[in-house]
Parts: sequence; C-alpha cells; structure tokens
Amino acid sequence: MSIKITGTGSYIPKKIEKNEDFHQHEFLNADGSSINYPNEVIVQKFKEITGIVERRYADDNLTSSDLGFLAAQKAIDDADIDQEEIDYIICAHNFGDVRANTVQSDILPCLASRIKHRLKIKNPKCVAYDILFGCPGWVEGVIQAQAFIKAGMAKKCLVIGTETLSRVVDKHDRDSMIYSDGAGASIVEATEEEGGILAHESASFTYDEAYYLFFGNSNNKALCPDTRYIKMHGRKIYEFALTNVAQAMKDCLDKSGVDIVDVKKVLIHQANEKMDEAIVKRFYRLFKSQAPEDIMPMSIHKLGNSSVATVPTLFDLIRNNKLDDHKINKGDVIIFASVGAGMHINAVVYKY
Amino acid sequence: MSIKITGTGSYIPKKIEKNEDFHQHEFLNADGSSINYPNEVIVQKFKEITGIVERRYADDNLTSSDLGFLAAQKAIDDADIDQEEIDYIICAHNFGDVRANTVQSDILPCLASRIKHRLKIKNPKCVAYDILFGCPGWVEGVIQAQAFIKAGMAKKCLVIGTETLSRVVDKHDRDSMIYSDGAGASIVEATEEEGGILAHESASFTYDEAYYLFFGNSNNKALCPDTRYIKMHGRKIYEFALTNVAQAMKDCLDKSGVDIVDVKKVLIHQANEKMDEAIVKRFYRLFKSQAPEDIMPMSIHKLGNSSVATVPTLFDLIRNNKLDDHKINKGDVIIFASVGAGMHINAVVYKY
Repeated sequence: MSIKITGTGSYIPKKIEKNEDFHQHEFLNADGSSINYPNEVIVQKFKEITGIVERRYADDNLTSSDLGFLAAQKAIDDADIDQEEIDYIICAHNFGDVRANTVQSDILPCLASRIKHRLKIKNPKCVAYDILFGCPGWVEGVIQAQAFIKAGMAKKCLVIGTETLSRVVDKHDRDSMIYSDGAGASIVEATEEEGGILAHESASFTYDEAYYLFFGNSNNKALCPDTRYIKMHGRKIYEFALTNVAQAMKDCLDKSGVDIVDVKKVLIHQANEKMDEAIVKRFYRLFKSQAPEDIMPMSIHKLGNSSVATVPTLFDLIRNNKLDDHKINKGDVIIFASVGAGMHINAVVYKY
Repeated sequence: MSIKITGTGSYIPKKIEKNEDFHQHEFLNADGSSINYPNEVIVQKFKEITGIVERRYADDNLTSSDLGFLAAQKAIDDADIDQEEIDYIICAHNFGDVRANTVQSDILPCLASRIKHRLKIKNPKCVAYDILFGCPGWVEGVIQAQAFIKAGMAKKCLVIGTETLSRVVDKHDRDSMIYSDGAGASIVEATEEEGGILAHESASFTYDEAYYLFFGNSNNKALCPDTRYIKMHGRKIYEFALTNVAQAMKDCLDKSGVDIVDVKKVLIHQANEKMDEAIVKRFYRLFKSQAPEDIMPMSIHKLGNSSVATVPTLFDLIRNNKLDDHKINKGDVIIFASVGAGMHINAVVYKY
C-alpha cells in the first residue's frame, strides 16, 4: 500500500491587489513613527526582497470556508471519487472565517464542518476537523491523513488549506504587502500504485521562536488597542528558516532514502523569494551540491503569501500546466516543505 | 502494545459564578423582545433542566492557553514522564485566547505552541498543533494521539482541552448561564500494560446540523451587529444528541467486544443534566437493559459546561477521589463520550 495525492484543486481569488495599490497607504514603523522615504521606494524595496508584484484578495462576500469549499469541490472532481467515501476532512487555516470589515474570527462551527455542509456530504462517519499549525497546516494535514490511513482509520481524506490574510493585515505595516488570500485542497488516498509519501518531517520550535509571528497592535497608535493584526519579526524568521527548513528537508530526504540528484522539484512555502532561494541553496549545500535550475517553482510574484493555501495551490497549478514550464512527471520525486507561525516546519518527500 | 492514559491534570478556575449572580441580568428572547417572567423564575427553570447551580470563570488576567498550560503541567507530573519525550501536543479549544473584555480570538500562534513555550519544552520534534472539533475536541485529540501511536509516529502525546466560554457569551441570552471555563489534560502513551483504548467512534453531522451551535448576534439588538457570541438551538441539539450520542456509544461498545454489564462508568460531556440522563437511559435501552445507579458521574452542578475541558476534568477529578464517591479501579471498563458544535460526536471505550 502507498499513500498518494489523487486529486487537487485550488481557488485563486479574482481580485488583484497590485504593488502600486499600496502607494497611497500610510506606512509607519512599529513604534508609530513615520518612515523617512516615499512609498514608491518602500514598495520597490519590498518587491526586490520578496519578489511579490501582486497578490489576490477574496471578494467581500466570501470567507475562508467559502474559498476552501470551492477548492475542495475541484479536488474531489479531479480525484474522481464518490465524496460520500471520504473518511476525513482536515481543514488547515489560521484565523477562521473573518468577514470583510470586521475583526472577529468565526470558528464556530469549525471550517471543516462548514465545508462538509456546503459539499452536501451526508455520511456522518466522515470526520471533519480543523488544524491550526501556521502556514505549514496543509502539509501537516497531509501528514495526519497519512497517520489515519496507516493506523487503519481511513482510506480517503480531503485535506484543505484556506486563508484570507487580507482580513487581518495592519494597513500601516509594510509587511501587510506580503499577505494574500486563497485556498488549495487535495485528496489523499491509500492506493496500490507505487510511490506516494516516502517520508515526512515535522517540528515545532517554541522555546525561543513561539512568537516570531504573532497577533499584535497596529503601527498606528491612534487605532483601537483591542484590535490586533498579523505581525512578524521578519529578520528573525529569515535567519531561523534558513537554517531549520534546510535541515528539516535534509532529514526528510535522508529518511526517504532518495538521492539528492533524484529530486525533481521543491515546492516550498512562498513568503519571500530571497528567503526561499537561500533555503534551497543551503539545502543543496548540505549535500555538497548545487541547486539545479528550475528546481523551485515560484508562485509568489503573482499570488503573494496565502499561508496554508500556498503549497497545495502551487502543486495544483503545476499539475494543470499553469505555472511557467514547470512539469511533474509520473515517478518524479518532489519535496513539499513549509514554515510558519508557531514556529512550525515540515517537509514531505513524495514520489509522484 | 496498548494505548493508555498515564497521567491527568485539570485547572478549575477559582472564581465561582452562582445562579443568583444572574438575577440582575437583562435576559431577552432571540428576537429581542422581553421575557414575561422574572429572572428568579428563569434561573430556577434553568437549574431544573440543566442541573447547573454554579459555574467557574477564569480570572481576567488568564487566557485559555494559560489554563491549558496549568492543566498540562499537572498531567505531565502525574504521568511522571520526562516532558522532552513528548512527541505531540494536541490542544483542543473553540475560540482560542480571548482576553477579558475584548472580542477578538487570538490563535496566532496556535495554543499548543503557546503551551509548549510555557512548559519550556526544548525538543523541536515535539509537534504542537490545535484541533477545532467543538466540545468533543479533547476526546478527538485522544483518538488522534492513538492514530499517531498506531502509525508508529509517536509514543507519548499530551492532549489538552481548554476553553474560556465566559468570554464569548451573550449576557442577554439565558443560555449564557450554561457556559463555564476550565482546562483538562492527559498523557496518552504506548505501553506494555494491558487495556487502554479498546475502540473509538467519531462522527460529524453537518448536512442539517452544522449550525445548531453557531456564532451569532446578541439578543439585545442595540448592541454592535459585528460582535458575535456563542449561540445554540437548544431544542434541536437535545433531540439530535438523544438519538445520535446513544447510538455512537453503542456502536463503539459493539466494536470493543465488551459486554454492557461490564461497563463501570460513562463519562459524558456535561451540557445539560436532563439530556445526559436521557442519553444514558437510551443507551442502555439499546441493549435492552437499565442504566445502573452511579454509572454517570456528574460535575455539571458545580462546574457548568466547560466544553472541551469537561470530560478530561471529570476523569481527573474521579482519579483523584474528588467527585462524590465515584471510583474507577484498575481493569474497569469506562466510556468517554461527547457531543458539540459541528455537530460532532465521539466515544471511546477504555479499560482502566
């Protein structure tokens, strides 16, 4: 028996927010002081580091569970399964359903229940729960699906990552330009085909790192102190990720027994292009080799960082020949890897 | 190999909110209209149905993750394990950290990360994530720990249920009197001892039932329409639970192969005493027998409904001889069962 992803789907919101759309924002430093250069310079610098040119925002009438439902529907269709046979629906997110122009997260009931309701699945034995694990939530959901299948508790699982970060950004914080909305989903199945998940690696760094990403006040001190937004210590995250993501990927590949030369693609969480390039460079250096060209498909330029949605969306785009010339062929070994709030890191070595 | 709970701990807030403390509340109907009888009558009726006399509220300076940390610490001490050996920290809740007198849920980072940070666990391989699964979240966490152990991915897991429902109640809703705060935790371990988890059952009823518990506006229509609170369709939940919880418990017991006469205690989620009595009566009727006296330990009179914290706290109280004359002896078969927002139901048949 192997455990494979037999279907994928994604929902990319239509509304495009370009870098130029931030030219009129009032950006402030974390201490509330003004920034001494014009927004055009701030935005240009931002683009050079992160690679982000534009990002997607969900329509006001949609919430995170709506996006997740739309992606899930496509994944089920793509896998061509009877949805009543799904044993688990695992939904990863970070903030629940936040309606446009409100500040409360709505996570009652959990988003997996909402999505199952919208899918009109009747079977009560299909267990629907949410996982909170930062940006690596979708990859972790796949690892949990694997556990249920290995333990004999499931055969087919629907794993969703959905997020509307545009609803929790501080408009006065330059980092707000990073964040995006979207959803990705996949069907994870026990199958007799060879390949699938070869190894996984998960870690939670909390001793010093728990609050590198956190919920904090606006840089604009005039705003309500009870309203909080997604905030990060970018420099610390960069240094942390560089070392620890590369090492987790190496540990995972070592476990899988696959040679580094046989890795065809690295699908890594997209939060910062320069950081991703540095991680992959470091990863190859751990094997005393160099990263091949085209090893790392990038969606960040157009899609920004949509958290848990990033990796499954990237995978779905490639499978549908919608990401440059990137292709994954049957038998190819690929690596999924992610890092985010928690701070959590994970990786999966997967034979397509 | 068996999978056993080797340690338990709970945190019961000190602050007691008595039924009489609600006499001055302005209760309203769901449509905003006045209720035509005095609060003393409302409170008395409430007590007769639910059995609740008083409930606990967390101190203003504590949040849900603080309560979870305090319970977790006790569970680790009780199991007498090295906390660096814990493979998973699974934290169940419904609303994250909601600070006193604010309306936003803070779930960044996830509560399991916060608790791991407070426990000062250094091992990054200890994976810390949150699960959202309504009131049955702690029981589901135990079932997930079982999956990780069976799949060879873990040996020791810390499963926590923590909640501060007092922070999300609508003071104008009579149902607000049900809800309480608290935390319970347990260590779930692979062991060579006999017994432990014999069978489990999980279900998510979402087709008609997804929004039986939901996040909705205050009964006081003058309050901000963007602020929402925990709300329920009590009558529907009652009828739903009566049929489906009893059946899930039966299915679980059938799977375990244990005879109904060998069940020593039923530890069921406490949301309404009359409902729990009806469920257990129905459960025994499914076996054409009668519920023995003292089969169902009740904590609801003094502790109210603390959601995910209820079942682990109940178990912890009995193990520490703190709940009337209830005792669980080595070799006794007990059933954990829960029902809540989602609507989710689960049960575990466990040999102590």
